[in-house]
Amino acid sequence: MNFPIAQEKLDSILRQMDISDVSNTTIRQGVAIASAMEREAGEPFLHLEIGVPGLPACQVGIEAQKRALDRGVPSKYPNIAGIPELKKAASQFIKAYVDQDIPAECIVPTVGSMQACCNLILECSQLNPDKDTILYINPGFAPHMLQAKVFGAQVASFDILDYRAEKLGPKLEEFMQKGNVAAMVFSNPNNPSWVCLTEDELRTIGDMATKYDVIVLEDMAYLCMDFRQDLSHPFEPPFQRSVSRYTDNYVMMLSGSKIFSYAGERIAVVAFSPSLFKREYSRLRELYGIGRMGDNFILTFLYVASSGTSHSAQFALAAMMQAAVEGRNDFVTDVRQYEKRAAESKRIFLRHGFNIVYDKDMDQPIGDGFFYTIGYHDMDNRRLLSLLLRCGIAVITLNTTGSTHNGARVSVAALNSPQLMERLDQRLSLFEQLANNNS
Amino acid sequence: MNFPIAQEKLDSILRQMDISDVSNTTIRQGVAIASAMEREAGEPFLHLEIGVPGLPACQVGIEAQKRALDRGVPSKYPNIAGIPELKKAASQFIKAYVDQDIPAECIVPTVGSMQACCNLILECSQLNPDKDTILYINPGFAPHMLQAKVFGAQVASFDILDYRAEKLGPKLEEFMQKGNVAAMVFSNPNNPSWVCLTEDELRTIGDMATKYDVIVLEDMAYLCMDFRQDLSHPFEPPFQRSVSRYTDNYVMMLSGSKIFSYAGERIAVVAFSPSLFKREYSRLRELYGIGRMGDNFILTFLYVASSGTSHSAQFALAAMMQAAVEGRNDFVTDVRQYEKRAAESKRIFLRHGFNIVYDKDMDQPIGDGFFYTIGYHDMDNRRLLSLLLRCGIAVITLNTTGSTHNGARVSVAALNSPQLMERLDQRLSLFEQLANNNS
Repeated sequence: MNFPIAQEKLDSILRQMDISDVSNTTIRQGVAIASAMEREAGEPFLHLEIGVPGLPACQVGIEAQKRALDRGVPSKYPNIAGIPELKKAASQFIKAYVDQDIPAECIVPTVGSMQACCNLILECSQLNPDKDTILYINPGFAPHMLQAKVFGAQVASFDILDYRAEKLGPKLEEFMQKGNVAAMVFSNPNNPSWVCLTEDELRTIGDMATKYDVIVLEDMAYLCMDFRQDLSHPFEPPFQRSVSRYTDNYVMMLSGSKIFSYAGERIAVVAFSPSLFKREYSRLRELYGIGRMGDNFILTFLYVASSGTSHSAQFALAAMMQAAVEGRNDFVTDVRQYEKRAAESKRIFLRHGFNIVYDKDMDQPIGDGFFYTIGYHDMDNRRLLSLLLRCGIAVITLNTTGSTHNGARVSVAALNSPQLMERLDQRLSLFEQLANNNS
Repeated sequence: MNFPIAQEKLDSILRQMDISDVSNTTIRQGVAIASAMEREAGEPFLHLEIGVPGLPACQVGIEAQKRALDRGVPSKYPNIAGIPELKKAASQFIKAYVDQDIPAECIVPTVGSMQACCNLILECSQLNPDKDTILYINPGFAPHMLQAKVFGAQVASFDILDYRAEKLGPKLEEFMQKGNVAAMVFSNPNNPSWVCLTEDELRTIGDMATKYDVIVLEDMAYLCMDFRQDLSHPFEPPFQRSVSRYTDNYVMMLSGSKIFSYAGERIAVVAFSPSLFKREYSRLRELYGIGRMGDNFILTFLYVASSGTSHSAQFALAAMMQAAVEGRNDFVTDVRQYEKRAAESKRIFLRHGFNIVYDKDMDQPIGDGFFYTIGYHDMDNRRLLSLLLRCGIAVITLNTTGSTHNGARVSVAALNSPQLMERLDQRLSLFEQLANNNS
């Protein structure tokens, strides 16, 4: 057994890379450190840091995409507003799983939800000269915060762990009553914490968004993956919770990456609230000669960002959504494998003295899904990550997700065998020894 | 024959759409006007306004993309820096056709050259607080100018027709000596005019870019399509001209859209000058914790823009480039069909009293390729477009491309049969009658 790797080895790797704090690194640095440690150990790491799908891509999509290629779609620019097949299928898909009526015209494909959020943030930051701030409910997906920074927008945030239930409204109001919040971003279920906001909390967000004219960007990357309820039956309750029930100021982002394990093709859709899609902004008209929110998103922002989204991948997503709507593609049951992996690996962490940092949605234990968060007593992130790395386990520390609490994010994508669970168990035993020896 | 459509009909359509000047519209408005006129006529228009490939997609790409789908790449996020196969093939492709040595690590896939230029403009505008301006050699591709506007960068431009040969250097210097130019953008051959800058002109641009530390963004959308020379033989002169021979401050953009008629899949590569790729900018380090130009392009800008480019399309472009390099995919001869269409349709326009607006590269007549520009005596753009539309011909007027001269752009993509050439001839006869009747 090549673990634990000596602290001196880690220190030497960090020195070579000119990194002073292992827990405060860029993504590439994090990957480079883990790779160097892996080489040092000569034995594979447990890669719990990666957010890639841990399942094969949905075959319905692959077949549809190949058919589109054979029909010659690569020679034709896709309509930037999206192919009709995808717009229609997505409208039905949203009705089936979120129970919202959004017409096809308000739904637009994007190069992953990343492109969607990027251009929504950019557009929202230009609607009103007084509104230059994007508000984030943290912890969250780090690149969403970087997007605002790249465009020179201001960023505000708070940690959801400290402001749940009746504390949420006053906290939102504290930010919004300044009048400078253009949009707010959150995901439900949440990456990294798997917090699922309750109906009451979503209503609070919706009410505040309406009151202060703030646009809510709702990231549904993990749609229907709160497995505490069975959300797998199209057009039947219960449905995926959504802020769209409580305000007209919303845009939903639905990515094929995790729902259909189709991350490689960079395909998603955004669905605008119909009234927001049509809403006229005089500032947009001044800038671009087009006034409507939705038209500008398509004809200004997506146009210059990439001139639309892969033609063949649009057919793939259309087919996968259509099959789901028709009960031929039970994606929710497919991704339930993540639930099992989370439940089992959580038990292992808990057995070795860890705790779940974001542990509850009100009185309910947090669900088992794609991610969860772990902490070890009052250990700080630098020490936590150092010891885990020395034991052959890579994770992302919570400070990089905007959390104000100590801990790390665990992704269960890679934990796809009993052997890996056993390995996790062994390495966490080592971790405990190291932690308790204070070495 | 349903043409000419009455002026009153056009006026009524424009009134309904609240458009005061037909030649000064957004793209969507232009398309909507042509569609409404087409419905009015009950007969198809000649669509010379569209820049879509007029050839089937390269089969080598389609086959490679299908194989990648079958291998399951859709479930895996592509490396944002690009798959090794594509980086390597593009490096060889650039050596084969541009005779430049650019290592694979300096080459990165993007969602079309649109994403490349968009993010290069954004990055260039953040390198130095004093340099906030993007300089365009016009006429040009309108969205490239919109990209700067979307990010709040300043725009400067001049019309190449008035500043060729020995006039180019002083004109560039007039802008650059102000010290605020971050980057300049041009394409070679040029959309819309098909102007091909000479070696002397490229040397001038390169010298100025070096002298004033300006980054040249060279759009090679129409690589090897100056058919006045045979550029079809890999690794053999003559090669595609490029500013990269004359400065280290360059980034090339190579899109699969026109070269391989692969526009639908939104796939391109950018190739950085090796020294620029590695160049450290203190401002980038302050902002993003990463100093190098190339690393920031990948890990900051492309990361938040879309998290990389379609995994399967990367395999398609890699295969098409590799096959070209090995002499198995003679893309230059394939796209020479545009040359024939241009030569024949130009003759028709000239016969009916039109002139070529951008008519020469120094003493040589402009080449026959994907686009050319037409004018009719001293007719202004509003009247030119009105009369052409009334005769069933859609084009783009040159004012929308930043040109200071009257005229319109003709795309030959759709002119793929003798019947359509004949139809063009008939409709231009009508145009002549209308123009001379002063109606």
